[in-house]
Amino acid sequence: MRLSALVLLLALPALRADEGMWTFDNIPVQKIKAKYGVALDATWLKNLQLATVRFPGGTGAFVSREGLVVTNHHVGRGAIAQVSTAKVDLVKDGFIAATRAEEVKVPGLELMMLVSMQDVTAQVNDAVKAGMADKDALTVRRNALGELRKAEEAKTGLTCEPVTLYQGGEYWIYRYKKFSDVRLVAAPELQVAAFGGDPDNYTYPRHNLDFALFRVYENGQPYKPEAILPFSPKGVAMGELTFISGHPGTTYRQQTHAQMVYARDIGIPYQLKSMTRQKAALQVLSATSPEAHRIAADAIYGIENGFKRLSGQLLGLAKAENLHKVEAAEAALKAAVAKDASQRARVGGSWDRVAQAVERQKALLAPSTLIGSGRVTLLGHALTLVRLAEEEAKPSAQRLTEFSEGNLKATKARLLSPRPVQKPIDATLLAVGLRDANDQLGSDHPFVKAMLAGLSPEAVAKAAVEGSKLDDPAVRKHLAEGGKAALAPSTDPMILLAKALDPFNRAIRKQVEDEVTSVFTEHGGRIAEARFKAFGKSLYPDATFTLRLGYGLVTTYANGTGTKAQPFTTYMGMYDRHLGWGGNAAAAEEGAWTLPERWLQRQGQLDLTTPFNFIYACDTVGGNSGSPVVNVKGEFVGINFDSVFEGQGGYYVYDADTKRAVATDARAILEALRKIMDAKHLVAELTGK
Amino acid sequence: MRLSALVLLLALPALRADEGMWTFDNIPVQKIKAKYGVALDATWLKNLQLATVRFPGGTGAFVSREGLVVTNHHVGRGAIAQVSTAKVDLVKDGFIAATRAEEVKVPGLELMMLVSMQDVTAQVNDAVKAGMADKDALTVRRNALGELRKAEEAKTGLTCEPVTLYQGGEYWIYRYKKFSDVRLVAAPELQVAAFGGDPDNYTYPRHNLDFALFRVYENGQPYKPEAILPFSPKGVAMGELTFISGHPGTTYRQQTHAQMVYARDIGIPYQLKSMTRQKAALQVLSATSPEAHRIAADAIYGIENGFKRLSGQLLGLAKAENLHKVEAAEAALKAAVAKDASQRARVGGSWDRVAQAVERQKALLAPSTLIGSGRVTLLGHALTLVRLAEEEAKPSAQRLTEFSEGNLKATKARLLSPRPVQKPIDATLLAVGLRDANDQLGSDHPFVKAMLAGLSPEAVAKAAVEGSKLDDPAVRKHLAEGGKAALAPSTDPMILLAKALDPFNRAIRKQVEDEVTSVFTEHGGRIAEARFKAFGKSLYPDATFTLRLGYGLVTTYANGTGTKAQPFTTYMGMYDRHLGWGGNAAAAEEGAWTLPERWLQRQGQLDLTTPFNFIYACDTVGGNSGSPVVNVKGEFVGINFDSVFEGQGGYYVYDADTKRAVATDARAILEALRKIMDAKHLVAELTGK
Repeated sequence: MRLSALVLLLALPALRADEGMWTFDNIPVQKIKAKYGVALDATWLKNLQLATVRFPGGTGAFVSREGLVVTNHHVGRGAIAQVSTAKVDLVKDGFIAATRAEEVKVPGLELMMLVSMQDVTAQVNDAVKAGMADKDALTVRRNALGELRKAEEAKTGLTCEPVTLYQGGEYWIYRYKKFSDVRLVAAPELQVAAFGGDPDNYTYPRHNLDFALFRVYENGQPYKPEAILPFSPKGVAMGELTFISGHPGTTYRQQTHAQMVYARDIGIPYQLKSMTRQKAALQVLSATSPEAHRIAADAIYGIENGFKRLSGQLLGLAKAENLHKVEAAEAALKAAVAKDASQRARVGGSWDRVAQAVERQKALLAPSTLIGSGRVTLLGHALTLVRLAEEEAKPSAQRLTEFSEGNLKATKARLLSPRPVQKPIDATLLAVGLRDANDQLGSDHPFVKAMLAGLSPEAVAKAAVEGSKLDDPAVRKHLAEGGKAALAPSTDPMILLAKALDPFNRAIRKQVEDEVTSVFTEHGGRIAEARFKAFGKSLYPDATFTLRLGYGLVTTYANGTGTKAQPFTTYMGMYDRHLGWGGNAAAAEEGAWTLPERWLQRQGQLDLTTPFNFIYACDTVGGNSGSPVVNVKGEFVGINFDSVFEGQGGYYVYDADTKRAVATDARAILEALRKIMDAKHLVAELTGK
Repeated sequence: MRLSALVLLLALPALRADEGMWTFDNIPVQKIKAKYGVALDATWLKNLQLATVRFPGGTGAFVSREGLVVTNHHVGRGAIAQVSTAKVDLVKDGFIAATRAEEVKVPGLELMMLVSMQDVTAQVNDAVKAGMADKDALTVRRNALGELRKAEEAKTGLTCEPVTLYQGGEYWIYRYKKFSDVRLVAAPELQVAAFGGDPDNYTYPRHNLDFALFRVYENGQPYKPEAILPFSPKGVAMGELTFISGHPGTTYRQQTHAQMVYARDIGIPYQLKSMTRQKAALQVLSATSPEAHRIAADAIYGIENGFKRLSGQLLGLAKAENLHKVEAAEAALKAAVAKDASQRARVGGSWDRVAQAVERQKALLAPSTLIGSGRVTLLGHALTLVRLAEEEAKPSAQRLTEFSEGNLKATKARLLSPRPVQKPIDATLLAVGLRDANDQLGSDHPFVKAMLAGLSPEAVAKAAVEGSKLDDPAVRKHLAEGGKAALAPSTDPMILLAKALDPFNRAIRKQVEDEVTSVFTEHGGRIAEARFKAFGKSLYPDATFTLRLGYGLVTTYANGTGTKAQPFTTYMGMYDRHLGWGGNAAAAEEGAWTLPERWLQRQGQLDLTTPFNFIYACDTVGGNSGSPVVNVKGEFVGINFDSVFEGQGGYYVYDADTKRAVATDARAILEALRKIMDAKHLVAELTGK
């Protein structure tokens, strides 16, 4: 089947300036050459691919022949915390290994380098027999992919992962070399790495030294990487073309117009309102004592972080031009589909089916949100315990997804994590959740009755949290290992609450799956199929936390204050912010702009004019944290760490006007290592000087 | 008549944190004391009043015993340009008088100091006889006020001005001492005074050294002011209470809800769209040659400046909470009025009458905007010439307002101003205006037919502008002085166009006056009367370009990028912006962030940590430019020069969340005079050191 060229032209979703998160088998080399006169060859691309590594939740890159890897401080933060001790807080105080011997191994930290990719689409599709039901075909494909992964792993000795692109348009096996001996080498202080704290998150102008250095070892020796990104001797400038290599996590760009309208008008506003209530309750808690203030700060930060990201998404969806683009592309694709009988039969009705499921999603929004454990840690633990034995006994495919073979380990790890539970936070959030359920579902709703039993939400929350022993990991371990026998006699009030919750939660999850998610999967899949048939790989697939390349210029944008943002900041800007808030003595806004003492003492030694952060128009989302930014020579010029508030709509629609990623400039890293962090040996290793 | 206390309480428009532009006879001293524990006494207030002076379009203050006056560079810019020569551009290069002898007199520059105020409400109202028609009463009041002004002037020898407050609730005579020998003493370079140029206008963080110093002379000697504001030796800090004394120009806070809804939904969006078309046309012109680019830049700047201010106003009006406040206060006042028979009869219907006039305003928006001379300088000159002789022959009260006794001098000055006319700009804007008329009024509209006579807007505009000799001030002077005899035979195409325009413009102006403006004046006046009866001077009157006091804290706000704004900036921030845009070599955005050479050469001498600009929550609007900002001791801590984009809604509704004024810190002025501007003698004069 071929659609007519004109229809194709009409239907092609306008790929605007430098949009795209391209897979390394499908880099738009011709397009880049035509637009920028820059010809990327296979060697250049292979080098960038092999120099990039995946961190848990982020990205990093080899930057020396001796195995140094640079990533964001915030990507490495968990690891840095892990090797801290009660006496030495390396997150707060920073760290430099003066010698190789001082480099600190991070147990359990694994980095993944994408060695090669194999297209197995034909094999996977061959497994499907003609006339098979859709659901069966899905299972057959999943199984085939699993078999191929195992076979590849056995054959190559590499870690292999199945990858589904274009919502099923392509299936791949990605082969990774895994590094398991990773050691901390250098990290600045948190206050410089995350200067500006929560208020500055997702904003620009920015002044964050958001980097950390690790070293990969093999057989007790520094690993000698085949490919590295050498630090650029010159740095990058306004108007220069940059490339970013990394692992964007998730995007929703293939959602239908109806789904995006739902997100804009219903889904996101609902979440924002609910966060507002949670934050208000936490602020009340926070005001009760200095200790409450301290523990509430983290929870409030988490909410504000999400609030800002969602508000930015809403801003993008609310820009009429963005949804018009989606609508126009959808109309054109529908028209193209309508011209072909078999396509029409298979996909023609899918947009309506998705729209109908969106109506169900609306109806189920409140119950599916409120009949659960919400952000309440203890209730989450209790529910896991209540379900564990029962679920483990089932075949994997029949389990609740978090208990499936692939997820069980992580679920148990969360359950048994020694991370302390903050009971006052739990009590506050549980009360808000129960109060919301009471208000939105009504006091006569069976779930509300079962949970409250005639008491107030606040009373139930207080009793359950205060009476529970599940904050003790040993208690959770005992119940987890004891199975049903241990659980059945438990009178822990949180266990009792979870038991009451369990059937309601299973029912609403099933209803959402049946009426909403399965329709999105099936009919969203058919639409994706039609799009892939029409456009193939002239488009890029939605983000999947696999390796992608983006490109774009260092440039300004019209920011929310009404001016144009400066493409670069310098160290001067950091001290300006610090002083502008009154310095360390003022400790304004929870000390967001305070500076470590040595940054004040050694300020005179620092070249304050050094470029510090910059913005560039590459297409990124969460997961790109720690991604190397390189110039046309493939040299390292900066490390991506954020993108601006106004561009968060990019989760749904790319908008060239507002999509700006934020990087820490490579020159700022060298200057800090040299002048503040006593690490001239690392500067020498990174620059050869 | 007294309204019940409860109704009053309900009806009182919520005076939010530090709202208000208070007249000096009615400073809310008790309120300030209750809230901040600061007791302002009569001496303190009198000193601030007498130290403040009015500039044309702005404010300034005496800051030395030898008559030094500080104001904004942008308030003094016209004067600085005036004393520049073809060889020496003092605006661009800055100026310092090393000795008194070098201080440069600015011919025609007059400053006004408010010496005292007299309440003449009783006398003015006494002139009105019972049973007089409203229109007659208005005339009688105006005449009485005029007579009182003349009598006061004769009696005191001071310059006296009538002032109407609370839309007629109070009448005053303000007595000013006028200073006519004003000399330029110091000004920084434009690039530092207006650093960031157009893009940074109305934004914050900001880095503007927006000050100039003048000296007032009397009898050839420096004037010794009775009251001055000494420079604070300590400066101001985050959270400190500040006061601002100045001349806010115009506010619309007493408009009815219907009028504000009109501004939000119709008036401002219409203006923004029309500006967008003008700007687009000017950008096309700008691209044609470097010379066109140069001359278009100014016109585009003017449009962008207005666009940003209006967008900010729209943002304020679009915030639901703001118009809800207006609606609630209006409903409460209506309810209060309804309880009193005589009030009900007089005011009860006024809101509806205003709302009806708003409907007429909608209907007349396009013709009243398009049937005029728009922004076209030559057409404006031509229209003035066509009307001058005719209007001058009439009694003042019957003339078009710009030809009335009070305005005629300024109108003639504009007509004969040597300011060069940029013909390409005129041709572009005239074409846009005629095109808009054609599109919006229709090609069959008599006005459109009369103007275009079957030709295209572009052709008519080109012919009229290119063929006109009115760009020569001598030609205009000749026609102005020659009266009808000189004008009648003129074949200047712009004169012919103005003659065609004249009757249509008179007709639409009359219609707007009859159906809209007069209703707003009459019924808006009655509503104001009811409000004044109810609340008296517990409220402040709308701004009238007369002396007012505001107060508020130095504080942050949530700015448009998503972070909280730093209360202060420092000189570091200025260099950060400069470097962040690539320095002078890059000359980004028309060189908005370039710096004068000596600011680069002497950077090392400057204490970069000096506080530079700050934000504070005083209630200001245009006209407050150059206003002194003082601390509780009455010491000068900074000079107001702007307010942020997000708070421009304050023209209509005060919003404590977004209303932030921006000042240049006094310490930055001293540091610049000392280290860059070679003016230690002025530092000594200002500080006594």
